[in-house]
Amino acid sequence: MQEPEPHPRTPAEELTALHAAGDRAALVRAAAALHPADLGEVFASDEGELRALLLDVLPGRQVGATLAYIEPRYRNALLVGLAPARIAEVLSAVADDIATDVIQELPDEIADAALTAMPVALQRQVGRLIEYGPETAGGRMTGQRIAVGPERTVREVIDFLRSLRPNTEQPFYVYITDAANRLSGVLNLRWLITAPPDTPVGTLAATAAVSVTADTDQEEAARLLKRYNLLALPVVDGAGRLLGTVTADDLLDVLEDEATEDMYRMVGVDVDEDLRGVGRSVRHRLPWLAVNLGTATLAAAVVSLFEDTITRLALIAAFMPMVAGMGGNAGIQTVTVVVRSLALGRIAPRDAWGVLRHELAVGLIIGVAIGVPVGIAGWAIEGSPVLGLIVAAAMCANIANGMVTGVAVPLLLHRAGQDPAISAGIWMTTFTDVIGFLLLLGLATLFLDALL
Amino acid sequence: MQEPEPHPRTPAEELTALHAAGDRAALVRAAAALHPADLGEVFASDEGELRALLLDVLPGRQVGATLAYIEPRYRNALLVGLAPARIAEVLSAVADDIATDVIQELPDEIADAALTAMPVALQRQVGRLIEYGPETAGGRMTGQRIAVGPERTVREVIDFLRSLRPNTEQPFYVYITDAANRLSGVLNLRWLITAPPDTPVGTLAATAAVSVTADTDQEEAARLLKRYNLLALPVVDGAGRLLGTVTADDLLDVLEDEATEDMYRMVGVDVDEDLRGVGRSVRHRLPWLAVNLGTATLAAAVVSLFEDTITRLALIAAFMPMVAGMGGNAGIQTVTVVVRSLALGRIAPRDAWGVLRHELAVGLIIGVAIGVPVGIAGWAIEGSPVLGLIVAAAMCANIANGMVTGVAVPLLLHRAGQDPAISAGIWMTTFTDVIGFLLLLGLATLFLDALL
Repeated sequence: MQEPEPHPRTPAEELTALHAAGDRAALVRAAAALHPADLGEVFASDEGELRALLLDVLPGRQVGATLAYIEPRYRNALLVGLAPARIAEVLSAVADDIATDVIQELPDEIADAALTAMPVALQRQVGRLIEYGPETAGGRMTGQRIAVGPERTVREVIDFLRSLRPNTEQPFYVYITDAANRLSGVLNLRWLITAPPDTPVGTLAATAAVSVTADTDQEEAARLLKRYNLLALPVVDGAGRLLGTVTADDLLDVLEDEATEDMYRMVGVDVDEDLRGVGRSVRHRLPWLAVNLGTATLAAAVVSLFEDTITRLALIAAFMPMVAGMGGNAGIQTVTVVVRSLALGRIAPRDAWGVLRHELAVGLIIGVAIGVPVGIAGWAIEGSPVLGLIVAAAMCANIANGMVTGVAVPLLLHRAGQDPAISAGIWMTTFTDVIGFLLLLGLATLFLDALL
Repeated sequence: MQEPEPHPRTPAEELTALHAAGDRAALVRAAAALHPADLGEVFASDEGELRALLLDVLPGRQVGATLAYIEPRYRNALLVGLAPARIAEVLSAVADDIATDVIQELPDEIADAALTAMPVALQRQVGRLIEYGPETAGGRMTGQRIAVGPERTVREVIDFLRSLRPNTEQPFYVYITDAANRLSGVLNLRWLITAPPDTPVGTLAATAAVSVTADTDQEEAARLLKRYNLLALPVVDGAGRLLGTVTADDLLDVLEDEATEDMYRMVGVDVDEDLRGVGRSVRHRLPWLAVNLGTATLAAAVVSLFEDTITRLALIAAFMPMVAGMGGNAGIQTVTVVVRSLALGRIAPRDAWGVLRHELAVGLIIGVAIGVPVGIAGWAIEGSPVLGLIVAAAMCANIANGMVTGVAVPLLLHRAGQDPAISAGIWMTTFTDVIGFLLLLGLATLFLDALL
């Protein structure tokens, strides 16, 4: 399965080759010529030795520039193990939100030493941001923002922007605040550039700015930003005072991570699973499989109740995986749509009855469409119309069961404040296994005389 | 399960109440006061009668303003059924890329009539955009962009921006092109605002702009935009001439849709599934279930080969769903991680051997961790050490089988140019069912004398 054709070298492979050749000067030159996003990819890759070397020899500013481009799970751990002074040097070149994330990953004494070595302004800002929960708008925000009074003219604001350091992270909106720092409006740079220079900016910002409070969940903030097609959201405190901003690139990472998380949680895989560490993969996957083993045991117990029937009518065993499996397959379709629709805000718990009716209708139609041909095939192959009827009835009922359970379980979990992605599938397949076997083997036992 | 507590009314519910009360003037006033994103939600909702009324009575400009906020699948169908003159009125208020998407959904004669009624510039631009494939960067781009020569000064460019219509969609970058319209660089508005007024912009745009060609796949464009943290990407033709831009909000919709699509495709649900039309849901879900029925039939055929063994040793039937099911559960974890990692670009086909080795190791460890206790339980409950050994061996081997198949199938499908999300799970469970039953029942048959 290994790719036999040559493929274009990635930056990581280029640098690895130079490293292997022992040409350190060429390696540093090549790394310096890379876009920070490409160098970031090398830092996020599997190449531990190369990474350690580059972290050692590249200028702190260049290492810092890559951090905005590395996925948080690799980024936040990147500097672990470096000396505090070196960490401070790298973090002095990054935005305060990234510095805060990285500091939080360090052992306490290293974090303290690194903070002390950082510029005082950044140190103070990190101290402020570190107070917010990591999955909130406050935990994702940068304290850097541009705020002006409503009485300032367009010319004054543009002059003010010119006077700022060029690496201010959030560049496309100017917020309007009153003397008490309460947010009253927002301007985007394009309006500013196209407005007459003497206009007070307060008259340009017609609408109130859409904002979130610092304790807003990051996913909710991301949905809001997406809903209103914004590039950044202002974050305020309970009194409406501007604290900072969260930018689109950070929040959209949240949405994509959330999608991955939904997929992974449905099958009991940790969101950080990256097919690298065997021990970590085992630890993260085993619990979900163990729970599934529990439900499989329950299903096995149901089957063993019918040992007599199976001894006398062994051919029924061939239909067991079919009836249980098709119920589970139909149910997992429903679970997936319901879990994802809840996550995307497309349905809410108040839609429960409508969705349940929809799935029951779909389930009965599909149940008949699958059950009837299977029943006919059972009749034809085994020569028993009663067997055909039993298989058809069990199949049809179990498919409808899977779909109804597939709606009810995630909505009940959601309502109970649980994440439906984590366990909805397990509950649903428990129902389809147990009820599928009960239906098929129970009906077979009832009509055993007619079947033999 | 219906929510018993009162919940805050959504804008759609507010408008529905006013509509039900028959107060049309208040309805139009309330709709006019909504943010276009909120009005867009009403248009995307299930309220057909309300939607038709609002489409009829609201100003075309207001309807047009909502289109940028509505998910494409609702947006593109929204105007179907309106008169061509009205469609032209609404589309005259939207960006060219949205107008193109909407026009493509209309019946030919309506589309032609609407186009003819639109302003000539927009008509020409739509005619150009319509040529590109819908899932390419060209199909997603807007022709609107700001391009200037490198010799222009900052002051000239700012004056030029002031002279533009205020509703140009792509507002944050200015592209630098030569006399032949070939792209040479990019400036963002913040650099422009903070640079000395007499600087030629060509000297500000140090780095070459990251760009895509019009036929680049939209997902690839979205990954590139995300990789470099950009707000928009310039789209060029084969000779490097600037054609237009694709913006972050459109491309990030692509990424979120892609995540939903991956989840839905893994269980054979159409990406447009929204739990509304019963007929549509049946049509979209039945084919995948029918294919699964085929594989279940294969598994049933394997089981029926061992009818004699089952007749003589009915208790083995209780272990059948366990062995097959746990192999499938372990395999679906692997399939999910591999499918998603391929989509996110975290692994590539050339990583096949590494991933395969990783999963084989994880599979054997988990296989032993699950198989041994199950075997011991089998021994303890049924009093037969041979049965315990057979169950443990079949379970362990089938879990490792699920994980290895879970890597191999998606990577082979990916390499064959197929979307692994669509069928990897079905192939994998076919393997785990068939091989699981063969192992368990085959071993039981071999050692039947020792077991009885």
